[in-house]
Amino acid sequence: MTYIIQLGLGGVGQALVRQLSAQRAALAAQYGINLDYLALIDRSGALYTGQALAKAAVMAAVASKQAGHSLANQGPLRPLPALLPSTPAIIVDVTAADGMEISLGEAVAAGHRVVLANKRPLTAVLPTFTALTSNAATSYEATVGAGLPVIHALRSLRDSGDKIVRIEASMSGTLGYLCSALEQGEALSSAVQTARNAGWTEPDPRDDLSGADVARKALILARTWGLPWEMDAVASEPWFPLELASVSLDAFLQRLPELDATFATRVAAARTHKTVLRYVATIQPDGASVGLRELPLDHPLAGLRGTDNLFAFTTARYAEQPLVIRGPGAGIEVTAAGVLGDILTAARMLR
Amino acid sequence: MTYIIQLGLGGVGQALVRQLSAQRAALAAQYGINLDYLALIDRSGALYTGQALAKAAVMAAVASKQAGHSLANQGPLRPLPALLPSTPAIIVDVTAADGMEISLGEAVAAGHRVVLANKRPLTAVLPTFTALTSNAATSYEATVGAGLPVIHALRSLRDSGDKIVRIEASMSGTLGYLCSALEQGEALSSAVQTARNAGWTEPDPRDDLSGADVARKALILARTWGLPWEMDAVASEPWFPLELASVSLDAFLQRLPELDATFATRVAAARTHKTVLRYVATIQPDGASVGLRELPLDHPLAGLRGTDNLFAFTTARYAEQPLVIRGPGAGIEVTAAGVLGDILTAARMLR
Repeated sequence: MTYIIQLGLGGVGQALVRQLSAQRAALAAQYGINLDYLALIDRSGALYTGQALAKAAVMAAVASKQAGHSLANQGPLRPLPALLPSTPAIIVDVTAADGMEISLGEAVAAGHRVVLANKRPLTAVLPTFTALTSNAATSYEATVGAGLPVIHALRSLRDSGDKIVRIEASMSGTLGYLCSALEQGEALSSAVQTARNAGWTEPDPRDDLSGADVARKALILARTWGLPWEMDAVASEPWFPLELASVSLDAFLQRLPELDATFATRVAAARTHKTVLRYVATIQPDGASVGLRELPLDHPLAGLRGTDNLFAFTTARYAEQPLVIRGPGAGIEVTAAGVLGDILTAARMLR
Repeated sequence: MTYIIQLGLGGVGQALVRQLSAQRAALAAQYGINLDYLALIDRSGALYTGQALAKAAVMAAVASKQAGHSLANQGPLRPLPALLPSTPAIIVDVTAADGMEISLGEAVAAGHRVVLANKRPLTAVLPTFTALTSNAATSYEATVGAGLPVIHALRSLRDSGDKIVRIEASMSGTLGYLCSALEQGEALSSAVQTARNAGWTEPDPRDDLSGADVARKALILARTWGLPWEMDAVASEPWFPLELASVSLDAFLQRLPELDATFATRVAAARTHKTVLRYVATIQPDGASVGLRELPLDHPLAGLRGTDNLFAFTTARYAEQPLVIRGPGAGIEVTAAGVLGDILTAARMLR
């Protein structure tokens, strides 16, 4: 029996519960791995009885959350360390919360395994990253590229002694969509509005347009590769000038058309140079850059369309042609699937 | 301490010994996994002392093989089962030999882990595949796409309950090269000769041109996905007519220009249809096909150039855009790296 304590029951958390419940019997039959929830916890409460939670109770909790209700507090709600069982368990953080690294660090120190969809604990100061990830105690495939096997590929390259030369990645579906729309002649303000109406941006699109989320993913890749960087080593180029960072959301959306001409000029210039514009993270041993770049048409990232993510690893062994992983890098179901894959890896190591 | 018994010391086997020896200390420091050779065995002999082999002895054995000498028989050479230690070990098959599945099956039954670069044990009859791979006892990333994380991705999709709709793959660097050359107007016979001179084909190029190796990889993908197929379920379309299958190699090469006109016509027809020719394996629940196909220009496999492999997984969750993995799918170093990654996975499960 392998116990799971899940922190977070939003979209990804709910999908994870559904996937895990649906696959539980198959995984037991196929691998002899028996996964059971010990606790489900989110800001609105906790489901905890001190022993394996009944499937019906777990599914009822998800249904309750889905209906917009709080997670009924069915057990004594204590801080995470007090909930940890005496035998090693798997702590799954599918929140987007800051500050989780303290509890998670205590769990790792006590011999538990951690699985993250939450990027924040991995972009805290480097000693925190090192403490969480040493001895492969923490798995975090879903933090970069959702269900795409990006972290797995990078770890395999490193573990086998390959020397990484360069990682180039397009890691934002939203910004990828904007690049495609600009290329098709749409104005930036109109493309942002379309993306926002479709729900592809954060409520405040500046959270996407700042590039900060891409920078966080770039830092996770760099650290996974073994580069001892802090967050300030990965500067991201925002899509808007500093003066628009502090105005209200309404004012920002109203003033967005001011940027249309600049972006139209950049797209036209790229076309003249026979290049395409992509929002790219480039990570090399001597530094990283995250910004809008002109790429030649035969560049692996140039073929990218729409919201797909793409990761290209150029290494000593993959020197002439990079190792490339491409596909949807966001979405509730594929993110939950990435988390479930990590849970299985963690469960194998606990047996 | 985790013991490894390695079967095969050809190009991939030698590269594996070098990579493992170079990474041994780093893996111990990073993960606390201590890997040691218990035996190195190939057709020419064995290096076996009944305990961990000294690094100097292992490297000397590799140097000896590299110089074209036989592997000095330094221990009592017994059949594999007699060499297996009482505690679980990792048996690595980097041969291309038939018939290994019997010994490997006994090793799995006795609780050992198996890691394969050898495709043959996985393309034997289905009960053999099932026995080897149940409970994840056997890892085989390097059998398809070399170091590309193809099997890992497919297993993760399956384990998380995704429903696979279609796998499309270009899995032969040699045949991929030929498609590119034909597209550039080269005659088939000339392209085959160029590839043969460069060492990119088997000594008898019919071993590539038959498509049999691609069919074996397709069967491994299908079985990994859970399809209960035998080898005859995956028919491959050869590049040459049956009458050329039985002639001598010299006669085959001499008569190859007879095929040039047919292939030039196919390439011209594809161009007229605004498609490109690719040698593609398509695996669906109701069957597989392996052959030369006309693909529309926006197909994920159409962008492939030269010797790269490409795998596109279309699933319930990756429905609109597939999960795509691309890159060099052959080569001694990347194949050995794929094997080493599996050895680490196996070692984690043994602890």
